[in-house]
Order: sequence, then C-alpha cells, then structure tokens
Amino acid sequence: MNRVPDEGMVLVPGGSLFTETPEEGRALALTLARHTIHNIQPDLDILKGGRPNYSTTPDSLTAAAHVVAIEFQTIAAANNYWRS
Amino acid sequence: MNRVPDEGMVLVPGGSLFTETPEEGRALALTLARHTIHNIQPDLDILKGGRPNYSTTPDSLTAAAHVVAIEFQTIAAANNYWRS
Amino acid sequence: MNRVPDEGMVLVPGGSLFTETPEEGRALALTLARHTIHNIQPDLDILKGGRPNYSTTPDSLTAAAHVVAIEFQTIAAANNYWRS
Amino acid sequence: MNRVPDEGMVLVPGGSLFTETPEEGRALALTLARHTIHNIQPDLDILKGGRPNYSTTPDSLTAAAHVVAIEFQTIAAANNYWRS
Amino acid sequence: MNRVPDEGMVLVPGGSLFTETPEEGRALALTLARHTIHNIQPDLDILKGGRPNYSTTPDSLTAAAHVVAIEFQTIAAANNYWRS
Amino acid sequence: MNRVPDEGMVLVPGGSLFTETPEEGRALALTLARHTIHNIQPDLDILKGGRPNYSTTPDSLTAAAHVVAIEFQTIAAANNYWRS
Repeated sequence: MNRVPDEGMVLVPGGSLFTETPEEGRALALTLARHTIHNIQPDLDILKGGRPNYSTTPDSLTAAAHVVAIEFQTIAAANNYWRS
Repeated sequence: MNRVPDEGMVLVPGGSLFTETPEEGRALALTLARHTIHNIQPDLDILKGGRPNYSTTPDSLTAAAHVVAIEFQTIAAANNYWRS
Repeated sequence: MNRVPDEGMVLVPGGSLFTETPEEGRALALTLARHTIHNIQPDLDILKGGRPNYSTTPDSLTAAAHVVAIEFQTIAAANNYWRS
Repeated sequence: MNRVPDEGMVLVPGGSLFTETPEEGRALALTLARHTIHNIQPDLDILKGGRPNYSTTPDSLTAAAHVVAIEFQTIAAANNYWRS
Repeated sequence: MNRVPDEGMVLVPGGSLFTETPEEGRALALTLARHTIHNIQPDLDILKGGRPNYSTTPDSLTAAAHVVAIEFQTIAAANNYWRS
Repeated sequence: MNRVPDEGMVLVPGGSLFTETPEEGRALALTLARHTIHNIQPDLDILKGGRPNYSTTPDSLTAAAHVVAIEFQTIAAANNYWRS
C-alpha cells in the first residue's frame, strides 16, 4: 500500500486549534477534514483514484464544503472569533 | 488549467469575520462557502462546467443553502448578532 | 432571463436578525433560506420549473426543513430565545 | 386544493419555545419540523401521497430524525435544558 | 398494526436530559433518536422490515451516527460536559 | 454472529470527554462515531463486508468526516478548546 505520509495522518497538525488569523483558521479547518479522511482511508492510491470523479461533482464539493464549515465553527469559537 | 483568480482562493476575504451589517455577514457566508470549493477544485472550467446541472437541481441548491446557513451561524456569533 | 425581483435578492430582509416573536423569527428563517437560493440561482423560470418535483418529494422537503432549522437556531440565539 | 388546516400552518404553535418539560420540548421540535414542511408544501393530498413511501424508508426516517434533533437543540437551549 | 410499545413512544425517557455519566448520556442520545423515529413510524413490522437493508448499508449507518452525534451535543451541553 | 468485542461497544471509552490534547480529542471523536455504529450494527462480518465499498467512495468518506467534525465540536467545547 502506498500510504499517506505520516504528517498527513496527524489529526490536529500543530497540536492546537489556535491560529493567528481567520485565514489560518480556515486552512486548519480544511486540513482537519482531510486528515480525518486519511485516517479512515490511508491508502493514497485509493484517495487519488476517487479524486477525478469527486472533485468534478458539484454535490460532492458542496458536501466537502459543509464539513469544512463545521470544522471552522469549532476553530472560530476556540479562537474567540479572533477578537482582539 | 484555467485557474480561479487569486482573490477567489483567499479563504477569508478581508481577513476578518466582522462585518458592519447582517447583510454583509450573509454575503461573507456565501463567499466563504464558494472559496472553500475553489480551494478544493481550482479549475474554473470544471467549476463552470458543473454549474448548469447543479444550479438547476433543487436538492443541490438546498445543499448549498445548508452550507451557507452553517457559515452564517459562525459569522453571526462572531458579530454578536450585530447587537448594538 | 426572468429574474427574481430585487426584494427577493436581499440576503437579510429588514437588515436585522431581531424579531418581535418566535413566529416572526421562524418566518425570517424561511426567508433567509429562500433568498440564499435566489442568490445562487436568480432565474425565476428555473426556480419555478424545479418546484413541481421538489415540492412533492418528501426527502427534498426534509432537506429544506433542515436548512430552516439551522437558520432558526441562529435567529433564536440572536433573540436570546425571546426571553422577556 | 385540500389545504393543511390553519393551525398546521402556524410556524411556532403557542408562540413560544418554552415548555414545562423535555418531553413537551421534544414534541414541539417534531411540530416545528412538520409545520415548516406544511409551509413549503401546504397541499394535504400531496403530503399524504408521499407518506407511504417516505415513512417506510429508513434513510428518510433518519433524515427526519436529524431535523428533529436540530430543532430540539434550539428548544433545549431556550429552556436552559430544563435545569430547575 | 403491530405498534411500538408505549415505552418506545416516550420522546424523552426518564423525562430529563441529565445523566450520571457520559456513557449514559450517549445511551440517551441513541434512545432519543430511536424514539423520534418510533413517533414518525410507529408500526413495528415496518421498522423491522427496513432494518436488514438499513443496518447493512454503511451510508445509512453513518447517517444514523450523525443524528446520534447531534443529540449527544445537546445532552452533553445540558450536563455541562459532566464537569465535576 | 461474529460480534464486535466488548470494548468496541462502550459508547464513551474512558468514560470521559476530557483529553490532554486536541490530538487525543480528535481521536476520541473518531472513536465515538465508530462505537455508535458498533451499537447499531454489532456484527463484525457485516461491518467488514461494507468497508471495501464504503472506504473507497469519496462521498461516504466525506459523510464520515462530517460526523467526526460534529463529535469533535462537542469534545472541543467540553475541553474548553484546550485553553491553558
């Protein structure tokens, strides 16, 4: 098996939900979602094999954006919405 | 590849969740959702190619509205619901 | 194109999440969800064309009710649940 | 058209999210979800026509239970979880 | 009709969201979800008839787990996350 | 029946939502989701039988990641986002 590299398996890269900016928080949301999937399916070839169909199907993209929105909700609350 | 312009790739345009009004907060929710999708699928031709089907399918529109509702929940909380 | 009238494109009609009653808050939730969809698909003929199928399909109605439930969650929190 | 009776169209029956008990709060959650659907599709014959299939399809029941769970989340928060 | 027994129709068994432990809170989340479904479809034969297909379909199990996660979110908040 | 081992049936392994780190919180979120499914479908052969299809279908992985995101939202709140 062509396995996802170790760093792609870390569930919370950096080990923290805190970020400097909303932009970084949003990037973390995307990463959390992706790394969950790596942990459920760590075979890179299977992941890459599914991408051509998934990434060109609007409903699949909407479903992925939904997960990112939920992850971001958690991260934004953790950062108190980056209020100064 | 005909790539989404750079400004469409920014995850949190303006770098902040704070807006003057609920209307602007709602517009930001729509933008956040769209830019997530740009980051997952940055090929404009693929995005445009999916639109005719997606945008005329009620269930796809409902799914998109669902994501916007979640994003707005975060933005509204960040803005303390625009209480004065 | 037979476009949704301008008032149907306003994302937050009235410009506020605050309402006098839960009933009005609920009506606002329905409106927010609908106006999101108008902004994604502003062609009235397409929207009307999808309605006969959508509105007679239980799973589509459930999905729409789900979005309204999320929008209402935000509005109810904004109004502090209409506690007096 | 055989229309849903007026009381089935009220979005928040009783005009309040407050209930005496969790049981009543849960019943209200079910009612809120149903009345949303009545407002989107007020034709009783269509609603009844969809029921035989919908109510015997596990995934449809799960989707309905999902909406009730969201509505209850709002109602439970409104009632401060019925803490005495 | 072979109806779900009365105790299976109670929406919030025990009449409270408070539990001694997270384990019991989680069990309550499962129960709440199931009893919602009993109230929408109280015919035991229909419920049992759908189970062989539903319970062997991963996506159906994921959808059910999703509802349980939402119910648990409410119960966990009610119990202040079982902080001592 | 080849049943899921007893430890896989515990709904909240460890009996607590509190973890030392976000990484452990995230792992708990994955576990909670999996154990819910074990409780709905405790037959290991059926679970394993569904995995080849489920784990190679992007939309199924997205749906699973969605549940994990919700579970993590609860766990992160319980841990006050691991603020020190």
